[in-house]
Formats: sequence, structure tokens, C-alpha cells
Amino acid sequence: MKVSELFMPTMKETPSDAEIESHKLMLRSGFMRQLSSGIYVYLPLGYRVLRKIENIVREEMDRSGAQEVHMSALMPRELWEESGRWAVFGPEMFRIKDRNEREYCLGPTHEEAFTYIVRNEITSYRDLPKILYQIQTKFRDERRPRFGVMRCREFTMKDAYSFDIDEKGLDISYRKMYDAYVRIFKRCGLDVKIVEADTGAMGGASSHEFMVPSSVGEAEIAYCKACGYAANLEKAECLDEPFETAEKMEQIQEVFTPDVRTIEELVSFLGIEAKRFVKTMIYRADDRFVAVLVRGDREVNETKLKNLLKVTELELAGAEDVERITGAKVGFAGPVGLSIDVYADNEVKYLKNFVVGANKTNYHLKNVNLNDFEVKQFADLRNITPDDLCPKCRSQKVTIERGIEVGHIFKLGTKYTEAFNCVYTDEKGEKKLMIMGCYGIGINRTAAAIIEQMHDEDGIIWPITVAPYEVIVVPVNVKDQQQSSVAFEIYKALQQEGVEVLIDDRDERAGVKFKDADLIGIPFKVTVGKKVTEGKIEVRNRRTKEVVEIDMENAVEAIVNLIKKEKAQYEV
Amino acid sequence: MKVSELFMPTMKETPSDAEIESHKLMLRSGFMRQLSSGIYVYLPLGYRVLRKIENIVREEMDRSGAQEVHMSALMPRELWEESGRWAVFGPEMFRIKDRNEREYCLGPTHEEAFTYIVRNEITSYRDLPKILYQIQTKFRDERRPRFGVMRCREFTMKDAYSFDIDEKGLDISYRKMYDAYVRIFKRCGLDVKIVEADTGAMGGASSHEFMVPSSVGEAEIAYCKACGYAANLEKAECLDEPFETAEKMEQIQEVFTPDVRTIEELVSFLGIEAKRFVKTMIYRADDRFVAVLVRGDREVNETKLKNLLKVTELELAGAEDVERITGAKVGFAGPVGLSIDVYADNEVKYLKNFVVGANKTNYHLKNVNLNDFEVKQFADLRNITPDDLCPKCRSQKVTIERGIEVGHIFKLGTKYTEAFNCVYTDEKGEKKLMIMGCYGIGINRTAAAIIEQMHDEDGIIWPITVAPYEVIVVPVNVKDQQQSSVAFEIYKALQQEGVEVLIDDRDERAGVKFKDADLIGIPFKVTVGKKVTEGKIEVRNRRTKEVVEIDMENAVEAIVNLIKKEKAQYEV
Repeated sequence: MKVSELFMPTMKETPSDAEIESHKLMLRSGFMRQLSSGIYVYLPLGYRVLRKIENIVREEMDRSGAQEVHMSALMPRELWEESGRWAVFGPEMFRIKDRNEREYCLGPTHEEAFTYIVRNEITSYRDLPKILYQIQTKFRDERRPRFGVMRCREFTMKDAYSFDIDEKGLDISYRKMYDAYVRIFKRCGLDVKIVEADTGAMGGASSHEFMVPSSVGEAEIAYCKACGYAANLEKAECLDEPFETAEKMEQIQEVFTPDVRTIEELVSFLGIEAKRFVKTMIYRADDRFVAVLVRGDREVNETKLKNLLKVTELELAGAEDVERITGAKVGFAGPVGLSIDVYADNEVKYLKNFVVGANKTNYHLKNVNLNDFEVKQFADLRNITPDDLCPKCRSQKVTIERGIEVGHIFKLGTKYTEAFNCVYTDEKGEKKLMIMGCYGIGINRTAAAIIEQMHDEDGIIWPITVAPYEVIVVPVNVKDQQQSSVAFEIYKALQQEGVEVLIDDRDERAGVKFKDADLIGIPFKVTVGKKVTEGKIEVRNRRTKEVVEIDMENAVEAIVNLIKKEKAQYEV
Repeated sequence: MKVSELFMPTMKETPSDAEIESHKLMLRSGFMRQLSSGIYVYLPLGYRVLRKIENIVREEMDRSGAQEVHMSALMPRELWEESGRWAVFGPEMFRIKDRNEREYCLGPTHEEAFTYIVRNEITSYRDLPKILYQIQTKFRDERRPRFGVMRCREFTMKDAYSFDIDEKGLDISYRKMYDAYVRIFKRCGLDVKIVEADTGAMGGASSHEFMVPSSVGEAEIAYCKACGYAANLEKAECLDEPFETAEKMEQIQEVFTPDVRTIEELVSFLGIEAKRFVKTMIYRADDRFVAVLVRGDREVNETKLKNLLKVTELELAGAEDVERITGAKVGFAGPVGLSIDVYADNEVKYLKNFVVGANKTNYHLKNVNLNDFEVKQFADLRNITPDDLCPKCRSQKVTIERGIEVGHIFKLGTKYTEAFNCVYTDEKGEKKLMIMGCYGIGINRTAAAIIEQMHDEDGIIWPITVAPYEVIVVPVNVKDQQQSSVAFEIYKALQQEGVEVLIDDRDERAGVKFKDADLIGIPFKVTVGKKVTEGKIEVRNRRTKEVVEIDMENAVEAIVNLIKKEKAQYEV
């Protein structure tokens, strides 16, 4: 393709509304434009990248034995009533009425549709297992779309669903998807961390997230540099490590703390370290209220709490409820004399003489000890921190970093097959529920994650496997007859070889053309300049910045070899 | 792929709710299922066909110089306010509100989005022409979804939009798309008629529809077997052919026709032929009312009427308005003494002593002649009929048949660029409006049209270019060691050659497997049966029904050659 004809509206200035590099670069390189908040359109270069990622995903899905189907975006309310999610899904789900007032949603995900189809069409163990997938547009009305395509409202996902006759079958399907994901991200040039993720109330089941380490990621990962353990923050277990202090238990004492509520305020007001406080958080858990205690410098892990309590809804109690329960304004809750159940993080077990709220507005209690109140249950209820040992090898402290979730695999079990009565007949003629797994990859987010991981001050550095084009040929001066004709010859010869190649035939300064080539991240730049008179041209690798001078005569062969070598590192 | 693993829920029975062959066969062959009225999901075989059609479209679009982009399905109301179509589009457009009560539509088409993007990104004549396209889901809330994917509510379209500096440029872009469409449908194995279509109020512009002749088509085409002229019914011109009758003008006469309103009723009541009546139709045309006269056995062509009157809205007047205007109940309108403008079809010019309504309930007038009332304008205002001569060569009467519209190309001119102020700067620095064209192909409907054209009593006959697989290998008896191992050898060898091949390894009767192979329309069936002991296998061409016996040793080579030969006929 000639750059003079290509629809590639690059921008010199950084768009002011883009906060992270991938967002800035996708706009600057003319890959996409915003049509509305969280809604983007993809221009030729951007769409080529998305399609390349899609094709890698498709090839690896097919290779794993998954079969591609295509569900609809519009799904009737009745389908979602069957799973119970019409009521559960919040405002994130776009809902719409047709001309006859029938209700539909725009699929934010497709468990319902797949289970419905399989329930209707598959009846015998002989037709199982099946892994079905699609590459489809998803719609989610995010409360706060941001970071470009990282969190947007209309995007492309590959979602797969496996149906097996038993847990052992699910293990096999799950492993197939796990392995396919490893291959997919390798081929996309992404360095991913595979982390254990929470599976909610389902005991024994597993779930993994494929995370791209990045400071702009919305999730936090805890991992161990020694043993390779990795889990997301929701899931990562905190060891119950007893510690003793020689300290003697002191006399409990009420202190006046006027309008001093937060740990920070208390630390500065009382001059006591945060870790000598115990925070008391009041939660509404389904239809009751509970209090949760964690050390002052720790955070309650609501996922762990939810799993412990086996509830589906959990939220911090409102101010009114807190006042009713504690008899004090918010900020002064404490466990002493509290009438609701108290759960405490393991760490609290080993504390002495700590500070808690007095359940009395403007007062706290000092020197509180465990015998001053009753704890219904101690458990791991806090987020892991860099102070914690690796829960797996215990040999060193964990590292915590942020990551972008690009893939997620999940053992669903019978959650949906039960709701849809999705059964098969086994060899003995008995009807049994199918066992499901689900597996997602965000296509657009994968593209953005690649940019986050692969860019420099000049622009994007696309891995050759997903680059919109593999080579860009740049005649330095298009008005120079020889430069121009040599450039076109090489361009055409490369096309003949099946290389995806651009030629920047624009009558622009070389600097402008080089800048654009770097910005849009084409893996190889072939410069045809003055040295063409000596039969020499230059090839630059965008990633390694390596420049080689090659002879004009065997330029095509040399370039094809460079491409092959570059591709080899992404092979699986 | 092994058929034993393939998700291919074929049905023996014809689904009762499917009225046309393509719909029946797409269900029976397990290509798709309905999720809701007019909303379908595509299973593996069906989705493969759609993707093959998409890829043919993509290749030919790219070859013509068009560039692929991807717009969003959700588009904000403001975008559609700019074109004025938010108000104009009826209930066919799905409208939706987000969590902040902002309004969006689900794109029924994308002129607005493309014009908006081009307006923002292209400013100079140097960046024109551009043809941009996408392959995207469209949403249209059809009043009456039917015939499977022929008229459904969520479907895939290729839509392209060209932007040129002038009409000459548009002619070139239009021709490129026209030629690409010819190639696309040829490659899909479709026999299409290219017909002139109406362009509305835009003088001089052109529009063509690509129609697949079929009795289940929703559009009617008039064409000439002599000269090849073809136009859709809305557009096809009726010649103004004078004819004389020796008849003398008789005296006008009122006749009592109690409760006799329709032409059929009048014919039987008065014993006079339909062609001796003149129908008077009252229309509301924008903000006024007009009467239109056509011969009793003709139909008013509302498109022609709309173009003549240069109005945007045209509809039959309601009963109340008719009564007020004519002074009579509906069914008794006539031109004599009518106070609104009367337009008449050319044919009416040559009629004598005809019957019209009397503008008096239960009365008609006989022996009416042109001097009994005033006609503001005679024009071509009726639908063409098999009585009419070809308007182009005049050498014989036209043939009328139904067709399925699979493609439509249209010179839009400045309709959208004006609304969006989509201008470019020309060589002299002047700002000028871009000239647009738009070009659509219905992907799902193309698949259905292929089936309508290519099927027999056994099932679908896919052209090899769009078939889900090219070859199906059928071991007659999978329990026969030799048959099974030879079949698998051939299957694997064909895969090695890049052939898309199925093997029906199911332990089913041969009859069941043959029936399924025919039903799903695989172009070549390779039967490995008893003759394998003699080193022979059989290859059957689904389309020609030709069967050849080939030697096992060079089976792969022979099959690959048959495939090549079969493909050759779809080459462009």
C-alpha cells in the first residue's frame, strides 16, 4: 500500500484527554478515534492490528479443538431471566426495547446464549466434550470509561465455553485453553504473568488471569520472585504467622478524640503508629450486618470476606446503619460491646494494647485486648502486602505490582447448566448436568497492552506478528528518480514475496516520514537514500534499533530473511 | 475436522416455521438457530460460510483500493442529529439510553459515522479520493422479520463509502465498486442481475441493485430479454405510447353503485373491464393533498410520484381526509369536480368513456372523458407490467420477475457531506464539499440467496468458494479396519495439501452419513467403501452429481485436481 493513499491521520501533538501511553499512541498513530465516551472507531492501521490478533486467537483456538460460532449481540430478556442475571446485572448492561416493547440486552457476555444453544442441541455424552468460541462485540456500560480501549463500552472479545461430562473432562478442557492462551500471548509478543484468581463461593474450582505487568493496570498482582507464585490481590493468601510481643496487657482506657476518625487522623492526633490500631468495618452481608477487624495499616479483602460468609452481596453499611449499630457517628466503631457478629483477620490474634473506636462519638479506646470482646471467627480477611511472605514457598516476601488483565479462564462448574437444565444422557441412560468452563480474551485491550509493553519515546514498537505492516520502504527523496524507482522495485518485489509492505511515496521531508514510520511502529524500515548510487540501502529494526546496510541486488532476500528471524522469536 | 467432534446438529424434519428453502436448509443443516424473532446465532458450519463470503468481499474490496476500517455499532444521537436522520428514521432504528440517559442508536447503517470521521481527518484534495469500508453488524428493528436471514434484525453488512473531489471522481469510485461487486458475486457462484434503481430526488445520479432472481425475493425486476435492460419496479420507465380508439365520446352518466368500491367489485357489478376504469388515489404529499389517476388495472408507482412532486413524505390520505376532500366515503373518489391538483399517468391521456368515482357515496360516473376535468400534469406514474415494451430497445415486452437484493450501490452526491460540512481544500485553496457514494452487500442474505439458487431435494449445493469444507471423506463402515485407515490416510493427506476436509468417522449407517453430506452441501464426497480392497475409492461432485472412481494410490492428487477444476469456474 502506498502511504500517499493510506488513510493514516497521524498527529504530532499528544491528545490532551489521553492519560496513558497506549491511548495516546493509538490516537497519535491514527489507529483509532473516539466517537463517544468509551466508544471508538478503528482506522485502517488499527483495524489491521486487531484482525491480526483475532487471527492468532482463532488459529490457536482451532488448534486446541475449539469450534467457532457466532452468537447475536441482542439477546432477549427471557434468556437472562433463566440464569437469574437479568435482575443481578447492574447498569453495566445496556437494555433496550424493540418496537413491540419486548426487552433485550446488548450482550456484556454470553454464558446464557451458549448454554441455551447447547442445552437445545446436545443431548448425549457421545457429543461431549465441546469447546465453542466466538469473536464478538461486547457492550458494557462502564461507569467510568477510561484509558482508551482499556476500559471502554464497546469492544471485541474472544469468549469460549467448554461443556464436559465431568470434572475430569473440565480439567482437560481448561488445560487446553490455558495452553492455548500461553501460545496466543507468546505469539502476540506479550510478557504475561499467569495469576491465580478468585473463584467466588465455588470450592475446588480454579481460575487464572493472564496479566500484563504494567503500572497503568487496574488490577494488582502479588508474586514471588523465588518460586514463581502469582495471584491477584483478591485471591493471594496471607499466611497466619504468629508473632509474640513481650508487652504486658495494659488497662483499657477511653480517650477523647474529637472529630478524629480516620487512621491517618488518629495517628497524628494520638502519636501512635497505624499498626497499633484495629479498624472496625461494618458490612451489610446479604440480610445481616457484621463487623470486621483488621490492623490499622491493612485493608479488608472483601472477596475473602464474601467467601468466608458465603454471601452474594456485600457492601459497607450506610452511615445510618452504622450509627444505629454502634450508637456513635461513623468513625468511632469498635468491637467492644458490639451486638453484631465480629470477624477478625488472623493478624489481630497477636496484637496487644491496641486502639479501637469506642462506639461513642468522639471517643476511642486505648489498650484494648482480645479478652475485651468476642470474635466469632478469625480468618484471612485482608489484602496481602509487601510485608507478607510468599504463601507458597515462604522463602521470601511477595512483590506486588499492577497488571492489565488480557485473559481470564474460569471453571464455572454447573452454575449455568443448572439454571438452564443443560443435561446430557450418560452411558447408563441417566441425565446429568454438563460441567462448564469459560475463557475470555479482550482483543482491543490486548492491542493496548502490547503498546504499554512495547513503545519508546518515538512511538509504538509492534511485534512483527501483529504489526499492521511488516516493512515500510522509505525513499528519502521521491523526486530523485533513482531513489524512487529502486524503492518501488523493492516494494513490488516484497509484495510478490507475500510481505506486507508499505511504501512512503509522499513528497515529504525524510524526517517527517521517518517519524511517522517510528510512530506507527512498523518492524522494518527500508531506507532508500543517497547510497543507492553505490548500490546500498539501509534496513532498520524498529525493536532492536539495529541498522544494517544491504546490497540492492539481493535486498529482497535479505529483508525476507530478517523478517523470518524476527518472526522466529514469537513462534510457539 | 472429524464429524464425530463437529458441532453440527442436523435435523431430519423440516422446521415448521420456515417458509422458504434457504431458511429451511440453514436450520436443517445445523448452520444456524433462532435466538429470538429475526435474531440468529451461527453454528460452526454456518459461520464458516459467512466468513468465506466476508473474505471474498474483503479481498475484492482491497483489490479495488478500498481500505477497511471498523466503526462502532453504538452511535450517539448527536451524530444522527447532524444528518437530520434521528428524526426521520422510524421504529426500524433501535434506540437506547446509557446509564447517564444519553441517547444512542444501534447502527442500521453508517453514513453518519463515516462522514463524521472523514470530515474530521481529511482536509486536502491531496488526501482524496478515499474508499473506506467495514464488515459490521447492523441492527434494524424490522416490522415483520421473516424468511430467516433474508429479513432479520441483526445481520452483517459490508458497507463502503467513497469520498471524491468531484462527480468525475465519484464516477470512477462508483465504477470500481460496480466492478468489485461483479467479481464478488461471480466468486460466490451467484447469478446476479444488475438493475437500475431509483435515486430519489437526485437528478443525474445513479444507483444499481445486484439482484438474485428468485421467486422468494421481495423486490420485482423488469428486464428485457432482447437488450438486457434491467431495472427494479420502482425505477423501470413506462413508455408513453399513444393509442387511438375509434370510439366516440359518449355522454357522462351517473350510476348507482351501492357499497361497490374496489375495481374488482365494480368489474363484477357493472360488467365492464378493469381497463375501462380510472382509479383516483388521494395522497398526502408533504403538506398538501393531490389526486393521482391510473388505469383501473394499473398500480400507482409511489417512487415516481414522489420524484415528480419532489416531496420527502408521501402516503395515502386517511379516510377522514378523503371524505373531506371528495365529499364522499372512501371508494367513490373521482377527478370530476375535485378541488385538489390532479396528476395522471400518461396512459390516461388516451382513454375514452371511462368509469370513475362520482365524489358521492355509492355513485360512480360512466363515460367520463378528459374534457370533464382538469389534469395538472401527465407523467409516467405507474408500475411497469408485462404489457409494456422495453423502454430501452422497444423491441419486445419486458419480463417481470422477483429478485433478492444482495448488493446496492448508490451515488449519494453531497447529501451527507453538506449536512456534516465535510469539505476539502482544493488546489486553489477553496473549500468544496466532498462527493460521496455508498455501497452495501448483505453477507447473511448473500448466503441465503446462494442456497435459494443452489439446492436440490437433498440439500444445499455450496459453490466450492464458500462451502464450509471442500471435501468430506466418508468411510462407509468405520468398523472395517481397512476402510477406516484408508479414509484417515486420505483425510490427513488432504489436510497436508491445505484442503479443507471433513471425515465422517461416526459409527452410523452409510445412508445417514451420505444424507448429511448432501444436506450440508460439501462439494466433494470421497467414499471409501468395499472397493477399497481393489484399491478403488469414489469421488462425487455434489453439484454435477458426477461420480468418478479413482485409484487409492494417487487419490490425493486426483482430488486436488478436481478441486482446482471446480474452483476455476468461479475465478475472476
